Amino acid sequence: MSETARDRAPAEQVSELTTARLSVYLRCLEVLDTAAVNTISSQGLATQFQLNAAQIRKDLAHFGEFGIRGVGYYVKDLKRHLRQILGLDRSIKVVIVGAGNLGLALADYAGFRQDGFDVVALLDTARDKIGQYSRSGVPIRHARDLERLVERERIDIAVIAVPAEAAQLAVDAVVACGIRAILNFSPGHLRVPEKVKLKNMDLTITFESLSFFLANGSLDT
Amino acid sequence: MSETARDRAPAEQVSELTTARLSVYLRCLEVLDTAAVNTISSQGLATQFQLNAAQIRKDLAHFGEFGIRGVGYYVKDLKRHLRQILGLDRSIKVVIVGAGNLGLALADYAGFRQDGFDVVALLDTARDKIGQYSRSGVPIRHARDLERLVERERIDIAVIAVPAEAAQLAVDAVVACGIRAILNFSPGHLRVPEKVKLKNMDLTITFESLSFFLANGSLDT
Repeated sequence: MSETARDRAPAEQVSELTTARLSVYLRCLEVLDTAAVNTISSQGLATQFQLNAAQIRKDLAHFGEFGIRGVGYYVKDLKRHLRQILGLDRSIKVVIVGAGNLGLALADYAGFRQDGFDVVALLDTARDKIGQYSRSGVPIRHARDLERLVERERIDIAVIAVPAEAAQLAVDAVVACGIRAILNFSPGHLRVPEKVKLKNMDLTITFESLSFFLANGSLDT
Repeated sequence: MSETARDRAPAEQVSELTTARLSVYLRCLEVLDTAAVNTISSQGLATQFQLNAAQIRKDLAHFGEFGIRGVGYYVKDLKRHLRQILGLDRSIKVVIVGAGNLGLALADYAGFRQDGFDVVALLDTARDKIGQYSRSGVPIRHARDLERLVERERIDIAVIAVPAEAAQLAVDAVVACGIRAILNFSPGHLRVPEKVKLKNMDLTITFESLSFFLANGSLDT
């Protein structure tokens, strides 16, 4: 029941689809907790949030036994377990490389703060931006401060929000400072060493999936 | 060999994971075409771009038989087929609701233009923004022009880039104008009628997947 999640499932055995679903479950539990719901079954979760009960049980089973026969899950407990599994039981420090519109939008993204993500700084090279702040107060610092910042602030995640032609250079700089988790928003393929986790947010692919649904008429019927 | 894709696979039978992979294949074929490669086998594609050859064949089989025994795929032909399957053989008109940092960043996103996506306008209600342009020249218009714009320009996709508390209202307005494909960037759950396709880009989920990998130590070894 309470063996810790981290001893149980090495990350490489858990797919990104699973972790994405864990994030969704956490979102649902937060809604239930806010509504003062104490316990819920996997079937109840599935019905209320249009999920799959068997999938919920299977996903959670990677990490321990959280359900209690005849009761279901304790909402607060499962929420805490999921936050721990997702590494959200501590503040995650983020630096954003690129203080253009995208970088500024990400720095002020409302979802982050409530989730424990702490955007420490935006980095840029444009002189008129250095020393300014995003709307929510994230400072813009010179890109050459990257190494010092990573060391002093123990940055966990770097976000790449620079134009495509500068992206590989930015990634190389970030990797050289020892950052091992990168989220890339620029289009195109980037190279990282094997031990670095790079996630690409290719917006074109998302748009193409909508385009597919428009073209293939499932929406026209 | 050349039955048209659209007669073959109703969209509801093709998962979003499949369409996302088709987008990736298209990206690879564009790289090959630029490098003047004429033909390639599924195995060649797989090796060169770290894909799965059997998966490629299976994904394409939904839409026709594009390979030729002993030759593989003609790069230009398969590229054209994929663009048609993805509905990219015509310009896709996009309106972005919200001309804040995120909306402006999306309007200028470099990947779109080369892919046939045409961002027609940004909509906002802030008086000082109306009449301005994004860096790449997308006009900012008043949100009350939405209906006229959708009618006159035959908008295909609406992007929601407004603060969370305004998102449901924005979605309702867009749906009321007859738009049936929506990409939402605001956090939180939005309601749409069944025939409308809503895709959520929840950035928190992406960050949590990186956090999971950091917390579960697969990167520490």
